[in-house]
Parts: sequence; structure tokens; C-alpha cells
Amino acid sequence: MPMTIDEVFAALTDLRARQRLVQNITNFVSMSVSANALLALGASPAMVHAEEEVGDFAKLADALVVNIGTLSPAWLRAMKKAAEAMGEQQKPWVLDPVATGATPYRSEAASTLLSLRPTIVRGNASEIMSLAGEAGALGKGVDSLAASDQAIAAAKALARTSGSIVAVTGATDYATDGDEVISVTGGHALMPRSTALGCALSACVAAFSAVRPPLEAATAGLAVYAAAGRIAGERCVNGPGHLPAELCDALFRMDKDLLAAHCGLGTGRGEEE
Amino acid sequence: MPMTIDEVFAALTDLRARQRLVQNITNFVSMSVSANALLALGASPAMVHAEEEVGDFAKLADALVVNIGTLSPAWLRAMKKAAEAMGEQQKPWVLDPVATGATPYRSEAASTLLSLRPTIVRGNASEIMSLAGEAGALGKGVDSLAASDQAIAAAKALARTSGSIVAVTGATDYATDGDEVISVTGGHALMPRSTALGCALSACVAAFSAVRPPLEAATAGLAVYAAAGRIAGERCVNGPGHLPAELCDALFRMDKDLLAAHCGLGTGRGEEE
Amino acid sequence: MPMTIDEVFAALTDLRARQRLVQNITNFVSMSVSANALLALGASPAMVHAEEEVGDFAKLADALVVNIGTLSPAWLRAMKKAAEAMGEQQKPWVLDPVATGATPYRSEAASTLLSLRPTIVRGNASEIMSLAGEAGALGKGVDSLAASDQAIAAAKALARTSGSIVAVTGATDYATDGDEVISVTGGHALMPRSTALGCALSACVAAFSAVRPPLEAATAGLAVYAAAGRIAGERCVNGPGHLPAELCDALFRMDKDLLAAHCGLGTGRGEEE
Repeated sequence: MPMTIDEVFAALTDLRARQRLVQNITNFVSMSVSANALLALGASPAMVHAEEEVGDFAKLADALVVNIGTLSPAWLRAMKKAAEAMGEQQKPWVLDPVATGATPYRSEAASTLLSLRPTIVRGNASEIMSLAGEAGALGKGVDSLAASDQAIAAAKALARTSGSIVAVTGATDYATDGDEVISVTGGHALMPRSTALGCALSACVAAFSAVRPPLEAATAGLAVYAAAGRIAGERCVNGPGHLPAELCDALFRMDKDLLAAHCGLGTGRGEEE
Repeated sequence: MPMTIDEVFAALTDLRARQRLVQNITNFVSMSVSANALLALGASPAMVHAEEEVGDFAKLADALVVNIGTLSPAWLRAMKKAAEAMGEQQKPWVLDPVATGATPYRSEAASTLLSLRPTIVRGNASEIMSLAGEAGALGKGVDSLAASDQAIAAAKALARTSGSIVAVTGATDYATDGDEVISVTGGHALMPRSTALGCALSACVAAFSAVRPPLEAATAGLAVYAAAGRIAGERCVNGPGHLPAELCDALFRMDKDLLAAHCGLGTGRGEEE
Repeated sequence: MPMTIDEVFAALTDLRARQRLVQNITNFVSMSVSANALLALGASPAMVHAEEEVGDFAKLADALVVNIGTLSPAWLRAMKKAAEAMGEQQKPWVLDPVATGATPYRSEAASTLLSLRPTIVRGNASEIMSLAGEAGALGKGVDSLAASDQAIAAAKALARTSGSIVAVTGATDYATDGDEVISVTGGHALMPRSTALGCALSACVAAFSAVRPPLEAATAGLAVYAAAGRIAGERCVNGPGHLPAELCDALFRMDKDLLAAHCGLGTGRGEEE
């Protein structure tokens, strides 16, 4: 049974009231839009990344997102340290395995981070298929060449082996615990034409993980973002240029009616995979 | 006696005419909005940060801003080197001690940089209270949990011990030399919902420090920014998404009438602290 | 003979159809706007920069842009490695020598990268004059103090000695192979008031280099960008704040009529230099 719109909105209301602190160890491209999306959503972002302090900062954080987009060795060490610190405190963290599969270095990094048991993994179809070990996972750099529904079986397999909730996003988004599959519709065709919106989604999912259990957090994050993306996309009649700003506005003023009108929740196509 | 609006506008006119070069060693989140705010204001930003060249670049720069938001050891070394180079040349530099107090590493870095005698320190209430050594300085990551007027005494104490002008910003902003306290009103409730606007303010204050003595520079920077923030916020009727762009527009077209109508200058509440 | 508008538009159509993967090793300030410009144009950007993977990633990339804006030793090593990998595969790469001449470290880095034979070099007048070894090349940090037409002779000389196509941009843009000089008009006076738009232009030129030979790629990139800049600037009646977003919209919806109406192609003033 997926969450209802009422339950998603209750999670958002809770997040807004509690202003959870979300630590981001993320890529350079997405930092600004991730921080702005989190602020618009009602969370409090912080972008500390030095090995020397990520462990200490994790004591303050309510959730963490680790995103390997612009990976390098020092950052990877900090990612591991922060993830371990969250694990020790039984606090949630989200892994965004950007472009895993594109290079051996990147795949190995994603694999190492996965072994630290992220609460939630959020990626596009190519990334999830690659992380699940599927041969022939196709990506073009950071963009997926596969559709999200082609990755449902991979997502379920990955959830089972990793113990993480897995969210695979695209035209339709899916979240799974390896058994149940929840589908989320919404979003807009312009979204892939604006950089780092997937990264900012991972950050939003991390924020929800600070107020809800993992599968609910993933579902609520995907649903609120899908609704905001649709609202924003519909306002961008001239192209994707203003999409990040419109997305933040839509997150900021999201209410139950807007949510109900701009996203859809269903039980996914888990069975037929 | 605070500056008059006429004096603030004269400082802005001067800055626009002289296009001062502002070196930024700042965090990854704020680079783009800081550069855009400086360009809109009429300054010329540069973001060089490598140890190998910051000293040489400081010879060209008219002012420097050092911001520890996304700190790491190599960057800290460069910050110190650049600050020292500015000091040797008796050129102004501004310290933005982002989230000092959040981790020991960050507090130690802020403290080290403070010992290099920044011309101006600009922070939120939690940061200034922490830097002044006040117990119980409360922050949530990079966001302050205290109001700016709770930090006036800390700001004065910090100004006295450090020899720096201290600006503490929030709903009302204050600038002090440890004796006089100037208050600046303006801004907008949406500003804390858009990332790195405090960082960009520090950069703007640095730009003014290249054309005015420290306390005047801080006052002028706070006032122009407060007015721009109010103008921008009032245009953002749907949320904070377009605030950085609107802020740049407001800085770009600021004139004396807009300034007079959107910010207020007063002598602060220095006595009653 | 310069390209015709029809030929420029054919190159754009080709780029959109083939969605070339453009690897960016660029500065922190420009990452977001470069990625968004590439996406709006119809290319697929990726921002990997670690030494550990740039060589592998270069095998996937169709073009590379190397931009030294926020240079440091580890990044420079990665730039060299990626450039060499592209050279070995005879795939195109663009060098953007940001602020070369400002410090010895920066000049040496630009010079080293130039020795790796970039397909195209794109810079402002000061940068091209400095790279060509002209005494008295004047810049203010990252901004040029010389006009682009003052750098035509330097651009031709640099093209001859380096073997690269050289594009020098400003109020009018020029592209040269050392012999022929093509001029491109368009753009808008607000463009220098928005950060990193020159960097994003270099990225767009790189995208075109994946579908056209070097001089045509430079010309097409300059022309499409000049038209988009003019369209965007004319929409920004309140200042430069929304210029990056408007530029992306203009790139996204560029068609042959818009191109013809907002940029001009000519044979440059190569002779009289």
C-alpha cells in the first residue's frame, strides 16, 4: 500500500515544523540548487566536506546525503567517514551514485559506499542497473539512456542485497524495499534539461528521511518533488532556464491541494519484472 | 553618528566608478551568487584559491573576502597566505566565519584567521557569539538560532579584542567598532530561505572596504544590501526561487531614492547590552 | 568565407540530434551555468575532474573543455591527463585560459596546456594577448581591460604558433586559424555583468567541436551564443540577474529565424592588424 497524499503532506508539514539539518557531501554542480531546494522545502542544509570535520558535523546532522558527482580521493574519504558516523548513530543517509558505471574509479567508489549500508539509494536507471551489477547498463556520462521502468527489477534486486531502500527516478519514479514497489508520477519533460535536479532530489529525500522511516521518506520525497517539478515545468514556457528557481518556489508553497493535483502515487509494477 | 543615505550612495557611486577587484576565497555554494552580486554592484570578482598563486593575486586585488563555508586544509592554508599578503600591503579583507562553533576544526580555523586581523568580520548571531567566546552560542549548522540583537554585546566585545570592525546580520544588521554601534534595517523574510546570501553580503562588504574606511564600508555594504534584499524580496511573491536574480537586479539598479526607501540607518542598541 | 546562418543552424540541429557528451574540467563558479547552457543547447555535460578517472572518462566523451578559472595542482594534473587522452584519440578539446597573465602560476599552467595542442582556445582579449606573449596585456583579474578587436593580431599569431583555432570574444567575437578571421556580432552589454558566461561559451564551443571541424565549430558556437545572448539581454530589462536563465531559454528555443535576426557573421579585420 503506498502512502496517501494526506500522509505525504503530513510528512512535509512535519519536516517544515522541525527544520531538520541535512549534511550534504555533494558535487560542485549541485551544491547551490541542492541547498536552495532544501531551504525551500523547510530543511536546513550544510555543505561541510573536510575529512577533518565531517565526523563531528555528523553528530549535529539529522540526515546526510552523499553524492559522488565530482568525486576525488579526499572527498571519498570524507564520504566514508561521514556515512560511518551516521551509521554508528543510527541516523539516516542517502547515497546518490552519480554516473556509476562510467569509469572503474567511480564504480568502485559507489560500491564501497554501498557497502556502508545507506538508508536510501537514489539514482537514475543506468546508475541503479550498474549498481545492481546488471550487464549492459547504459549511461551517457551522468545521463541515463535507459527508462526508469527498465530498472525496476534491478532496483528490487539492489534493495534486497544492500538492505537499502532503492529509488530509481525518471519519467516515472519508483521506490522499493525489494518487495513492495511504489510508483510516483509527476515531474516534467524539461527537468532533464536543467542540471543537478536529480542531485537536489536526493537531498530532499534525505530531508524526509529525518522525519519518516526509509520507504515512507523516499516516497514522500519523490512525491513532493514530482509535484513541484510539474508545477515548475508548467510555468517554464520558454525553456528550462528558470526551472531551478520555479522548482524552489513550488517546493516552498506546496500544499495538499497542489500535491494532490500534480503527482500520483501507486503500487508499482513490481510483480511483472 | 551613522552614515547618511547620501553618504552610503556616494560610496556606491565611487565603487561603481572604480570597479575594484575583489578576490574571493569562498565556499563552493556561494561562488556563483557572490560573483554575480559583486558584478551587479559594480565590482570585479575573482575566485582564485590555490596556495600557489593567492599571494601573487593579492598584489592585484583591492580587497579580499575569506569565507570558511566549505573549508579544507589546502584552502585554509591559502586563506592564511592571502590574508597575510593583504595585511602586509595594508589592504582590506573580510572574514566570514561560516558555522564557526559547529565543529572544533571550524572553530580553530576561524580563530586562526581572526588572529590575522581581518579588517571586518561579518557573521550571523551564532557565529559572532561563538567567535567572541560566548558559551551557549547556538547554531543549526550554518544557520543561526539566535537573533542578531542578541549578539550585539558579543559583537562589541569581539571588535574590541580583535581590532576588527564586526558586522552581525539578521533581521536587523549591526556594525560596530567596539564602541559605536550602527543599526541597519531592511532586507526581507525570504532571505534566509535562499542559500549563501550572507556570503554574498560579505563579498559586497569587502567591495566597499576597497573604497571606504572599515566602519563606513561595513555600514554602506549592509545598507545597500539591505535595500536590495527588501526590493528583491518584495518582487518574489511566489517564494525564494528567484531571489538571487532579483537581488542582483536590485543591486544593479540601486539609486539614492531606492536606497532611502528600502533601508534604515540608526545608532544601535549598543548601550543597553 | 564565413559560415552562413544556414550552416550554423545546421550545426546546431546536428548537435541537438546527436546529444554529444561534453566533459568539463572547469572552475567552480561556472559549473552550474556551463552545465545548464550545454543542456539547453542539446549536449550532455559531465563534470568529472579526478586524476583517477579523467583518462577513462575521456574515452566516453565526445569533446572536452579545460578551464583554469579556479586552478590548483591536482586539477591541473587532471587537465593535462584529460587533454592528453583526448589528443591520443584525436577528439577535440577547448582551452579556456581564464585570467592567464594575472599570476606566474596561472600563466605557466596556461602555457603548459597550450603545449598539449588544444583544438580551440577561447579567451577574452587580455587572455589571448597574454597567451600570445604580448607585452602589456592588461586584465583586471578575470576581466579584460582590452577590447576584442585589439587582440586580433595576437589571436592570429597565437593560432599560427599553437596550431589551434583561436577565438577571442568581447563586444565583437573573432575566430581565426591564423589566416582567415571570422567576426561574429551579437551579444549584449549586460553579459559581462553576469559571471562565467565566457566559461559557458567555451563549453558550448566544445559541444560544437564534437560535430564540426574546429574553425566551423568555433564560428557556430560563437554565433549561436551571440544570438542567445542578445535575445536574453533584451529580455533582462531590470538588470543582469536573470541573464543566465534567459540565456539558457534562448539557447533552448533557438531557431533559424532567431539566429538570423540576432547575430551577424562576417570576414574579420584580419588584414589591417
